[in-house]
Amino acid sequence: MDGGIDHLADERSKAEFDVDAMKLVWAGSRHAFDVSNRVSRLVATDPVFEKRNRAVMSRKELFKNTLKKSVHAWKIINELRLSDEEAIKLRSFMDQPGFLDLHWGMFVPAIKGQGTEEQQKKWLSLANKLQIIGCYAQTELGHGSNVQGLETTATFDPKTDQFIIHSPTQTSSKFWPGGLGKVSTHAVVYARLITNGKDHGVHGFIVQLRSLDDHSPLPGITVGDIGMKFGNGAYNSMDNGFLMFDHYRIPRDQMLMRLSKVTREGKYVASDVPRQLVYGTMVFVRQSIVSNASNALARAVCIATRYSAVRRQFGSQSGGIETQVIDYKTQQNRLFPLLASAYAFRFVGEWLKWLYTDVTQRLEASDFATLPEAHACTAGLKSMTTSATSDGIEECRKLCGGHGYLWCSGLPELFAVYVPACTYEGDNVVLQLQVARFLMKTVSQLSSGKVPSGTTAYMGKAKHLLQCSSGVQKGYFFTDTCRRFILVISICFLNYNVEHAAEDWLNPDMVLEAFEARALRMAVTCANNLSKFENQEQGFSELLAELVEAAIAHCQLIVVSK
Amino acid sequence: MDGGIDHLADERSKAEFDVDAMKLVWAGSRHAFDVSNRVSRLVATDPVFEKRNRAVMSRKELFKNTLKKSVHAWKIINELRLSDEEAIKLRSFMDQPGFLDLHWGMFVPAIKGQGTEEQQKKWLSLANKLQIIGCYAQTELGHGSNVQGLETTATFDPKTDQFIIHSPTQTSSKFWPGGLGKVSTHAVVYARLITNGKDHGVHGFIVQLRSLDDHSPLPGITVGDIGMKFGNGAYNSMDNGFLMFDHYRIPRDQMLMRLSKVTREGKYVASDVPRQLVYGTMVFVRQSIVSNASNALARAVCIATRYSAVRRQFGSQSGGIETQVIDYKTQQNRLFPLLASAYAFRFVGEWLKWLYTDVTQRLEASDFATLPEAHACTAGLKSMTTSATSDGIEECRKLCGGHGYLWCSGLPELFAVYVPACTYEGDNVVLQLQVARFLMKTVSQLSSGKVPSGTTAYMGKAKHLLQCSSGVQKGYFFTDTCRRFILVISICFLNYNVEHAAEDWLNPDMVLEAFEARALRMAVTCANNLSKFENQEQGFSELLAELVEAAIAHCQLIVVSK
Repeated sequence: MDGGIDHLADERSKAEFDVDAMKLVWAGSRHAFDVSNRVSRLVATDPVFEKRNRAVMSRKELFKNTLKKSVHAWKIINELRLSDEEAIKLRSFMDQPGFLDLHWGMFVPAIKGQGTEEQQKKWLSLANKLQIIGCYAQTELGHGSNVQGLETTATFDPKTDQFIIHSPTQTSSKFWPGGLGKVSTHAVVYARLITNGKDHGVHGFIVQLRSLDDHSPLPGITVGDIGMKFGNGAYNSMDNGFLMFDHYRIPRDQMLMRLSKVTREGKYVASDVPRQLVYGTMVFVRQSIVSNASNALARAVCIATRYSAVRRQFGSQSGGIETQVIDYKTQQNRLFPLLASAYAFRFVGEWLKWLYTDVTQRLEASDFATLPEAHACTAGLKSMTTSATSDGIEECRKLCGGHGYLWCSGLPELFAVYVPACTYEGDNVVLQLQVARFLMKTVSQLSSGKVPSGTTAYMGKAKHLLQCSSGVQKGYFFTDTCRRFILVISICFLNYNVEHAAEDWLNPDMVLEAFEARALRMAVTCANNLSKFENQEQGFSELLAELVEAAIAHCQLIVVSK
Repeated sequence: MDGGIDHLADERSKAEFDVDAMKLVWAGSRHAFDVSNRVSRLVATDPVFEKRNRAVMSRKELFKNTLKKSVHAWKIINELRLSDEEAIKLRSFMDQPGFLDLHWGMFVPAIKGQGTEEQQKKWLSLANKLQIIGCYAQTELGHGSNVQGLETTATFDPKTDQFIIHSPTQTSSKFWPGGLGKVSTHAVVYARLITNGKDHGVHGFIVQLRSLDDHSPLPGITVGDIGMKFGNGAYNSMDNGFLMFDHYRIPRDQMLMRLSKVTREGKYVASDVPRQLVYGTMVFVRQSIVSNASNALARAVCIATRYSAVRRQFGSQSGGIETQVIDYKTQQNRLFPLLASAYAFRFVGEWLKWLYTDVTQRLEASDFATLPEAHACTAGLKSMTTSATSDGIEECRKLCGGHGYLWCSGLPELFAVYVPACTYEGDNVVLQLQVARFLMKTVSQLSSGKVPSGTTAYMGKAKHLLQCSSGVQKGYFFTDTCRRFILVISICFLNYNVEHAAEDWLNPDMVLEAFEARALRMAVTCANNLSKFENQEQGFSELLAELVEAAIAHCQLIVVSK
């Protein structure tokens, strides 16, 4: 609104779809829409959740402000007896990373997933009442993606029935855990389990870090905040921390013993609980990241679209009103694909929810057949959607010109708080390499007659897809707003011929086949090039960049097909 | 250094070039290197210039810290009688945007360029002694790129021999000027000059904003700080401001009258000083932006390269030391082109210095023939290098994984402080459209036999470039680190055939011809498509995106050729 004129009303009146119906589509269901609507109002009308002053707060003020909000949210959730669904919504509308995110999001689930019933009973009851506050101490200064390379040790001492937790080097310092720097009293610590001189690899342990009386770090524990991070607010509201152990002792029963245990005598015993269950959890976490990507991108696109409608510049012939920025092709070509992506990520996120349910049901019936495909698919989509979203938010910021650089545009904060999604829960490049390994395996099995399924079903049409042509009239390249999209496809085909009429690109089947042919050809080319190497690992290492591109093409196909 | 081991020494020992000689190449000359070296030590050893605590300061503390540094720098420059070259270096090593940047960089040059000798004598003497502090108030809330659309008015009142400066609308509020929010006592204000009821377009006026006694805004002036901007430190050390005038009066002789004036009677008189001189200044400012781009990108690449050498992850076969991240092709493919770009921007920046000298000499001899080409070339290079640099800094941040997200990596701050370069001194998209207009004009003149010169000389070879083929063996695409670079070229040729041996791409002439053919073909295609429209402006508007791409291709050619 400016001087009583609503510059957006005219644009809104032009909508060619039913806006209320679209709201439900976006929310996923009438129920989800109602929950979201109700909880958002709860947060918006509560003065404790006020966000306006965040930018000018010092780090300390910001941190204290977040403590207050996190605890307030917890109280409301209890007082109003909110459901899990409502509680998650409330925390997301709070819109400020806080120490309790890790307590609820990682510490509690780790105990639920890896603790015995006895351990769950003891620790979850304390955690649920916030009598202890926990974080998730996995990443070390020198070890992120390569979890198997963690250096912290947990050596069993049969004399005292204790584990000795120790940080042998500087690179073994725990680094990054949210909630660790200032707040957490406990952590689930991942360390190499050593008993009878043998290293059994990385396991989880519940470790008390600070006194429950005066909150001071316990003897043998060095802990602190890792300092400022990207942006003004963003994750500076969170106390990401570092942690070192100096021969710190914990009782044996604080090893999380559902999947494997150490006996009083120091014997290592693996249980018969299938290890694949861990992957089920990863599918869950990553599908929620994909949903969050569509939310974050939608917020940015919403700001940039409104700005583009209101902002006018140039184009006035006779001193009249200038042209709306949204009417420039240069603006449309950058903004509209992002708008489309926000919707696409929404739909693929909804499909991933179904996939998670499906995988869970199969796991419960001990059917692990679809797990590798589901795992590759969620890993790849997590990577693709978070990269596209963080780049997309920054693009939206640029689309708002100088004004996008102002904190009050909302975009700098959104960018700074979003980009860690490219790193946490799996580095985006490393994840695509996992997808690539799965694709190479699938391609290699084609010749042995194994029928690919799920998101790789298209590979069953390999013969057709390797030979088919598609087409667009060349002139079309230069007159349509879909130009970039089409160009990208055309390029990637290399000898995928350009013949058909331009309108054919409006046929979803033809677009889908183009994406399928592209993904398949890139995968097959990689596989052929790999086969030229005697040493497979060396070949993989030489072809890393091509493999990542083939994996991304596969993921883009999934998004287009859902 | 970690536990006494210098992880970088091994990498450094592998350099295949003379590092000391390269330092001089980078600096431009032995003299430039010595100046840089000497001044950097001066700044590094002076405790007032300490930067370490910036991240944890509140906005107010940061602002006061910057005031102190800016004034300290000014004192040192005077006390040590530093040359202009040394003073510029010192302010750049201070590495913190401050209110005096605009005083020295815009306010003083505007008076020098547009003020009469009398005006220069009066105002520059006050400005040089900091008895007044000035800023540059051009951009308005609703008007950035389109300077001709500014709304602030300066109406001559013959009764009082004064101009009445007025902000008629909300969108006419001055917005963004650095130094305006808190510090400046004066501003060069751009406003529409109106006399005898006639609008003579935008002109500059020296306007006092605040009292020299108590620094309070003068009656009729509303002024303040526009609030937080992107990032934690970055431009938050600067008091970018807003400004509104309510029929504010200034004496007639505060209009900058070198290029045109208003007489006591209110008559508007244009001088015979050529208007083209303004473009000479723009060439100068933009060449310094290109040099700064190479500095900023080099800093980011330096951090990311060192990190990539030190960081190890995966690849250990038997519990030994892990693989250096720099040895992964995925890392190399992203990092090395940025390293190459930093050098390329350096060399093209040095060439632009020559161009500026050449243009200046020609202007002094009233030779304006090369000006359009020089103007298009610097506008395009400003756009291309600043876009590539800001994207490149963010890419370097990503290349440092989680650690790049830490403020102490230096990358978040570098990004936040750099990105405004894409907007100031000409929005990057708008600038490429100016280049495109120039290219279309050049293409249209080819048929009339006009020989293109300077950076468009290659267009004289149009016949050859439109027909020639080049080539790379296809297999080469998938094994070489230059792959992306080659792919980009190949793609853009569309029917530029792929035939020759791969090694030919190491031949600079062949690479240069490929870039020339690409730029020419894109420009000619745009020109052909434009000619299909009856209304040229409508055609331009429909083809905006293609025109920008053709302009970028032209700029990339310039960078490759220098």
